[in-house]
Amino acid sequence: MSTDVKINRGLKGIYFERSGVSHIDGAKGELSYRGYSIHDLATRSTFEEVCYLLIFGDLPSAIELADFDARLKTARSLPPAIYDIIESTKAGHPMDVLRTAVSALAALEPQSQNVGEDAFIENGIRLTAQVPMIIAAHEHIRNGRAPVPADPSLSHAANWLYMLKGELPSDDAARLADVDFILHAEHGANASAFAARVTVGTEANLHGAMVTALATLAGPAHGGAAEDVMKMVQEIGTPDKAAAYVKAKRAAREAVTGFGHRVYRAEDPRARHMREGVRKLGEEMGAPVWYEILQGVVEAMKPYSRHGLNVNVDFYSGVIYQLHGIPMDLYVPIFAIGRMPGWVIQCIEQQRGNILIRPLTLYNGPELRDYVDMSDR
Amino acid sequence: MSTDVKINRGLKGIYFERSGVSHIDGAKGELSYRGYSIHDLATRSTFEEVCYLLIFGDLPSAIELADFDARLKTARSLPPAIYDIIESTKAGHPMDVLRTAVSALAALEPQSQNVGEDAFIENGIRLTAQVPMIIAAHEHIRNGRAPVPADPSLSHAANWLYMLKGELPSDDAARLADVDFILHAEHGANASAFAARVTVGTEANLHGAMVTALATLAGPAHGGAAEDVMKMVQEIGTPDKAAAYVKAKRAAREAVTGFGHRVYRAEDPRARHMREGVRKLGEEMGAPVWYEILQGVVEAMKPYSRHGLNVNVDFYSGVIYQLHGIPMDLYVPIFAIGRMPGWVIQCIEQQRGNILIRPLTLYNGPELRDYVDMSDR
Repeated sequence: MSTDVKINRGLKGIYFERSGVSHIDGAKGELSYRGYSIHDLATRSTFEEVCYLLIFGDLPSAIELADFDARLKTARSLPPAIYDIIESTKAGHPMDVLRTAVSALAALEPQSQNVGEDAFIENGIRLTAQVPMIIAAHEHIRNGRAPVPADPSLSHAANWLYMLKGELPSDDAARLADVDFILHAEHGANASAFAARVTVGTEANLHGAMVTALATLAGPAHGGAAEDVMKMVQEIGTPDKAAAYVKAKRAAREAVTGFGHRVYRAEDPRARHMREGVRKLGEEMGAPVWYEILQGVVEAMKPYSRHGLNVNVDFYSGVIYQLHGIPMDLYVPIFAIGRMPGWVIQCIEQQRGNILIRPLTLYNGPELRDYVDMSDR
Repeated sequence: MSTDVKINRGLKGIYFERSGVSHIDGAKGELSYRGYSIHDLATRSTFEEVCYLLIFGDLPSAIELADFDARLKTARSLPPAIYDIIESTKAGHPMDVLRTAVSALAALEPQSQNVGEDAFIENGIRLTAQVPMIIAAHEHIRNGRAPVPADPSLSHAANWLYMLKGELPSDDAARLADVDFILHAEHGANASAFAARVTVGTEANLHGAMVTALATLAGPAHGGAAEDVMKMVQEIGTPDKAAAYVKAKRAAREAVTGFGHRVYRAEDPRARHMREGVRKLGEEMGAPVWYEILQGVVEAMKPYSRHGLNVNVDFYSGVIYQLHGIPMDLYVPIFAIGRMPGWVIQCIEQQRGNILIRPLTLYNGPELRDYVDMSDR
């Protein structure tokens, strides 16, 4: 075999496809969906509108949005067998339970077997509505409570908090969840979206690809940052200890969690919206200390900013969830709720002019050798 | 954005990692596992031995093989909740049911959360033993029968047929299943193994990666060829109609299923062993017609051989399963039984010096544009 073959570890810098969905400028720290800056979308749009934008390519008219919203709300329903499956797996990690339930939906809902663009849109809308239902139902079932039925008068984000907590969220809390979902909705060829594309590349259906995406997001290096940051904040304890914590981590050559991102060299443009959310929510709830600890870490990390180590979106989101009293093992599932439309549209894109995604490994094992019978070993 | 970036569609020809497991020479039509030719392994080895070889790198001694075999047999057990989940999803495609059950095992068996090489080996051995149990249990449950318990006196392949059919297989039938599993055990960076590596790249556990692999194998362009070939054989009906069938397909510029492979230009080296199996099994069972139809198709396809369109491994396997009376929707799950050790060892390899697998997409969507309020749309 040739030994001068180039190995592209992690496929870093390798373009495998074109995509018209999101644009990331990692050097400048810019992100846009379909040409709209994430800053405009985070401050002026809603998650439903962003779903429509991502899937159909343009902002909806009032009528289009009302129709799309109705489709999402109609889809807020789960087959009874899903609740049984959640019950029997309830002791597991919420990501394992969610992935199992989405996988089971493929077996329970015959229309999930359909492929083609219309089927992917239809199944994508249904799953976008069902995923938060599964997560909220699991949270109740594992605590011995009955799941809270969806409320069709509520938005996607408000209904999520309502189903999770069993009470109507404040407007501010609902809006913060809405912004969180918008910020997480799509992010190019991240590992979970890319893995989902590999699954679609074999002409699999959308449910299969979503199972792959969930399995991939569950890895701590992908979806686990928010949880890790919250653990770090608890470990630090008080704002005055942040600098010493960072110093010790750097001295031990360990990563400070929530900093750095494969594609951003500048600050992750999503971070600022979450930062503002933490600050306000912490003040409202009379618990400003966590925001202060986070800012202490940011301050102590400033010298490393020139190496590309800036805060990413998940640096702030964990603390928001903590302020809401949401268990840590639901942080990754919340990421999944937001990411649904991005996964769906990337699977739709992959399906157009589809191709099997199959790279190569360079063999570095033993040369060809003769088989030896057991008696001669 | 730059427009002269190279897009590597399907990642064709791109090396993303080194691997010491299998070597494919697509031009010559050669395949080896750990330096041993697939021909030696298919004729002189067993699936258990090949599992050991793939995972540990060398052929086992008699004691090592006995120990490994005992580990596989001890692992032939499923939590009771898995049978309930199979029952509630039994109407689904066997791949959807299998994937759901493997996903649920992650929630039901706490040791599935462990990562690291020893954990991946332990969990990989357990899953290798459990996957055929799930498939056989589903086949019984969907037909209103009780699952057949595993028989610890039988080999992996014989036990599979015993659990599936409820009767001891003949030595020939067991050996043919054994060879089938050996031939399917590992095949480089195929889409399912690659997708599993993307999942492991995020530091996910093995069960998550196996769920990804199953979701990806389920796509018709990856695991579906055996089923497609069987349908083609049924459509052709008699050997004398094979040439006309091929002619019509080529005239319509449609692919003839079971021919061609992303990495082989010569004949897939695994095909000959399955071909011999079909011929013998067809004769034994007094049903030689299917072999004759297949050979009629091969004959008619000869002019296209120079374009790399040669038979692949799945050209023959579907007919073998049909001769055994196995339902068509179990063909892909059978592929999965064989592929387990290949997926497991590739996930172990990926975990060593792990890196996030995250390529790029080149943005070709709208330029940055101003957000327009709903009232102005």
